[in-house]
Order: sequence, then structure tokens, then C-alpha cells
Amino acid sequence: MTGTALVLDIGGTKIAAGLVDPDGRLRYETRQPTPRSDDPEKVWAAAEHTITDALAAAERTVTGVGISSAGPIHLPDGTISPVNIPAWRGFPIRDRVAAAVDGVPVRLGGDGLCMALGEHWRGAGQGAAFLLGMVVSTGIGGGLILDGAPYSGRTGNAGHVGHMIVDPDGPPCSCGARGCVEAIASGPHLAAWAREQGWAGADAKELAEAASSGDEIALRAFRRGATAIAAMIASVAAVCDLDQVVIGGGVAKAGPVLFDPLREALRTYARLDFIADLRVTTAALGGEAGLVGAAALLRDS
Amino acid sequence: MTGTALVLDIGGTKIAAGLVDPDGRLRYETRQPTPRSDDPEKVWAAAEHTITDALAAAERTVTGVGISSAGPIHLPDGTISPVNIPAWRGFPIRDRVAAAVDGVPVRLGGDGLCMALGEHWRGAGQGAAFLLGMVVSTGIGGGLILDGAPYSGRTGNAGHVGHMIVDPDGPPCSCGARGCVEAIASGPHLAAWAREQGWAGADAKELAEAASSGDEIALRAFRRGATAIAAMIASVAAVCDLDQVVIGGGVAKAGPVLFDPLREALRTYARLDFIADLRVTTAALGGEAGLVGAAALLRDS
Repeated sequence: MTGTALVLDIGGTKIAAGLVDPDGRLRYETRQPTPRSDDPEKVWAAAEHTITDALAAAERTVTGVGISSAGPIHLPDGTISPVNIPAWRGFPIRDRVAAAVDGVPVRLGGDGLCMALGEHWRGAGQGAAFLLGMVVSTGIGGGLILDGAPYSGRTGNAGHVGHMIVDPDGPPCSCGARGCVEAIASGPHLAAWAREQGWAGADAKELAEAASSGDEIALRAFRRGATAIAAMIASVAAVCDLDQVVIGGGVAKAGPVLFDPLREALRTYARLDFIADLRVTTAALGGEAGLVGAAALLRDS
Repeated sequence: MTGTALVLDIGGTKIAAGLVDPDGRLRYETRQPTPRSDDPEKVWAAAEHTITDALAAAERTVTGVGISSAGPIHLPDGTISPVNIPAWRGFPIRDRVAAAVDGVPVRLGGDGLCMALGEHWRGAGQGAAFLLGMVVSTGIGGGLILDGAPYSGRTGNAGHVGHMIVDPDGPPCSCGARGCVEAIASGPHLAAWAREQGWAGADAKELAEAASSGDEIALRAFRRGATAIAAMIASVAAVCDLDQVVIGGGVAKAGPVLFDPLREALRTYARLDFIADLRVTTAALGGEAGLVGAAALLRDS
């Protein structure tokens, strides 16, 4: 990729567009709230609005478009069906964007993959050839760099680490399964568990503050979540033979109350020689990672 | 690969060599018991013996050597440290074989990967571009075909599915962790659990016979193992976005007493759209898969 990339980040609460320089710097960003509508064209109008703004901000023609989207996506068709955008089921985002921005390559990736790509290119995962980038937030998601390249899988949905089963008898998950790491360790589930134990706070942010102040229930809640995440990480490492895991998202901002028990649990679960020295680090780019990573989708083309 | 491949399969009980035709047919096989010795050269002598026999059986020069080895291996160095061959720690198998069979490419892969490659080329996994091949036996291991190509990972150990954590509070595993699927669902662990419940038989083979005859404890033992395997498979599928899983090994021969509860548990755990239609099938090649797959290591070169 030699010129400026137009990038899109499509999520359930906002749709963002931006411009990314060839060296991976985000130099412009614009956002629209994701319309709460059943009409796919109303949602598209918001996306188109951000595209128009970003193209106006570009000083010259963009050389490609990278799209990061909440999942599930279907890469072979270039369509997306984001769980939190019910108006879009099988929405042909790649074709619609290609029609709106003529004559340049358009690449699509899951938001987990784009986060991993962003951290790999310009953030905490630089230099790792086998990387899991993951986000612990309202949900838990992720993406994989394997052998230095983005790994999309059969349908574009590889890296759905939040729905790895870490406890076959565990709590029910929104996906319909039970014992998914997301159903134990996502922000809302951490807070809900703590409240069941008698904690009186509202959400994961408050829970992190309580844990940092030494609240026993809050500390136990993070330890329980960290243990589930560590089991999941050890499992991904055993299957994919990784060198690094980068963790971002709101819950990761909790810091040591999450990362200390996580690293301790990893020493229990990651025992095979080739995974025992796995590096687990905090993400560096924050919310920018998805836009930067969407531009990285164009780097191989 | 256009000519005959010399293949080696290195395990804790036997070392086998063979010749594989360009179309993936194993047309010669010879075996030596793996020497119980602390001397690495004694073990090498057995391997060399099989190589000499196989070369003598080849009607013309072989065009490459493929080596399947029990793990862990270290692909960047071409060395192996099989758990059950204590004399070989960091043994330079690739260089030694290259010195013994002059002037042809030598490729190394883990035994799980070679099993997957064998089933992918000539067995039950033909046509799958995203395949997990796995063995349930004394241990549980596996290998991955991603995007139609063997996936080795950073060190050559990708596909160690037996050490995925399916129960953070689960039983201790030989790897040092706890709750690994191998520590629950391998043959010896299935039988040990059944004996703890009062079953009087000896091993997993007898347990399969008992389950097939309707023994309640034996059926429960297989259901418990199948549940753990299903959780593991759902997890690999969520991370790697697969289209098929092929299961081989002695315990898989138990048939419906394993596969019926496994498929039932998969319906519980594999709920995301892109993994809900995952195919799970029985391996077709048996013990041959590793030798055939070792030849497949040469196909890309």
C-alpha cells in the first residue's frame, strides 16, 4: 500500500471512518452513531455519511478501503451480519463500499482481526509473527496473526476466542452455548457475578476501582475472570503455537487486578515448553487499533 | 513432489519407515521397536536401520524425506525431544537424516500435523480446506490444515489440542497443568475414572466393549470424555474457523458410545453460526496416516 487508505469501523454503537497514512498513522477520524433502525438503508446512510466526510478530508485520492466490522461476517460473500446491528443481515458491505468509492481495492475483516492487525503494525504486538490480539469489554473477541499474516479462517470469523468453552458446566452464554469465557469474564458478567456475591456497585469500571482499593469480592471477581481468560489463552497457545497475546478493551484497563491473577493462572495452565514463555501484554493503541488494522488489510494486496 | 518419498514415523514405542508414491499410496513399511536406552546413538541406530531397509526396497532414488515425530519438536532447529524417547532431547533429526539420505529435501512435522495431512490427502479429510485432524488414544493430539496448507506454528507444535483447558478446576495433567482435555478423555483417563466409579475392567478397549453392551458406568465415562472433547472441538472451531474435524486413534474405535454423546454435546457448545455446521468424522487411514502425511510435507516444496 503506497497511498492513503480510507478505513471504516462498523460497530453496534458507532460507525467510524478515517484516513490512515502508509506508515499506519491515523490522521483523520469521523463518527456517526449506529442508527437504531430496522431499515438497512438507514444504517447504510450513516456509513455513507462517514465515508463522504473522510473522502472530503483526504487531500488526494485514497488508494484502497479497509473495513473492520463487528461479527459475524461472511468473507467469501463480502457480507456482514453484526449481532448488534439487527437491520444488517447478510448486508453486502463490500459491494456497497466498492460502489461508493470507485476503482480501488476494498478489503473486509472482522473487528477482532483488525484490532490484532493494528496492534501488530503499530502497537504492542510489533515484531510478533504469531499473535493473538484480543479485547475484553462488553464482550470478548479477538483475531490472529499467523506466520506474520492475518488469519481469517474459512468464513472470516477466526479468532472468536470469547466463545471458547472454559467450563463445560459453566453459565449460559448469549451465543446459546454454556461455559464460554465471555459468559464468565466479560465486563458485564464480572460485575453481575460480584453483585450476586453481595457487591453493591454498578459495572465493571466500578468493580475495577473497588478491586484496586482492596474490596475482597471485587478482587475475587477479577481473579475468577482472569482464571477463565488464562485457561482460554493457554488453549489458544497450545493450538496455534503463539509468541504473544495483546489484550485491550475496557476491562483490560483494570490493570494489575486483572493481569496479576491472569499471569499467575497462566503459570498453572501454560506448561508445555513451547507455550511457557508466551508474552502477555496490554494493548497500546486503544480504540484506534481497529481503524489502523483495517488499513493493514490492504498491505498484502 | 514427483517421485517416491521416504517417510519416517518416530514414536515412543516404534520407529517406522516407508515409501510413499506420488499419489499418496504407502507401498512399503518397516518397523523397529524404539530402543529403551539413554544413548541417543542407540535410538538413532534403530531409525537408521529402518531407513536402510526402506532405501533398499525403493526401486530407484527417493526424491525427498518426510519425518513425522512425536512432540515436542523444534522446527526452526530441526530438532526433536519426544516425551517418550528420553534419550533424545534436542536431537538433530533433520540434519542426521539429511546426512544419511544425501541430496534430497528433508521435511519435519509433528505427528499430529502428519496425521491431519495424511487424512487430508488420502483419508476422511479430503476436500476440507480448514481441517483439524486429531487422535484420541493414550494421549490426545492433533494437527491443523489452514487454508489448504499445513499449519506448524512458531515452533512446529501447533495443534496440541490435548492440552487445551476444558475445566480450570479439572484433574492434573502429565504436562503439569490441570483440566486439559487429555487428562479427562484419553483412553487411560477414561478407564481410570470408570474404575473410580466401581467399574472392574482394565482399559479403554474393555471400557468401550462394556459401554457398547450397555454398562451404565462405562456409558457415563464415555459421555464425560465426549463432553470434554466436544468443548475442545467447539473451542478450536471458534478460534480457527474450521470446516471439518477428523478423529482417529484407539479410543475413536469405540464408535457410537463416543461419537453419539460427542455430537450431542457439540450441539450444546458449537452455537455460533459459522461453526454450527462443523463436520465431525472418523479417520479413515488408521496408523498409516502419519507416514502418508509425512510424505505430504514434501508436496509444497
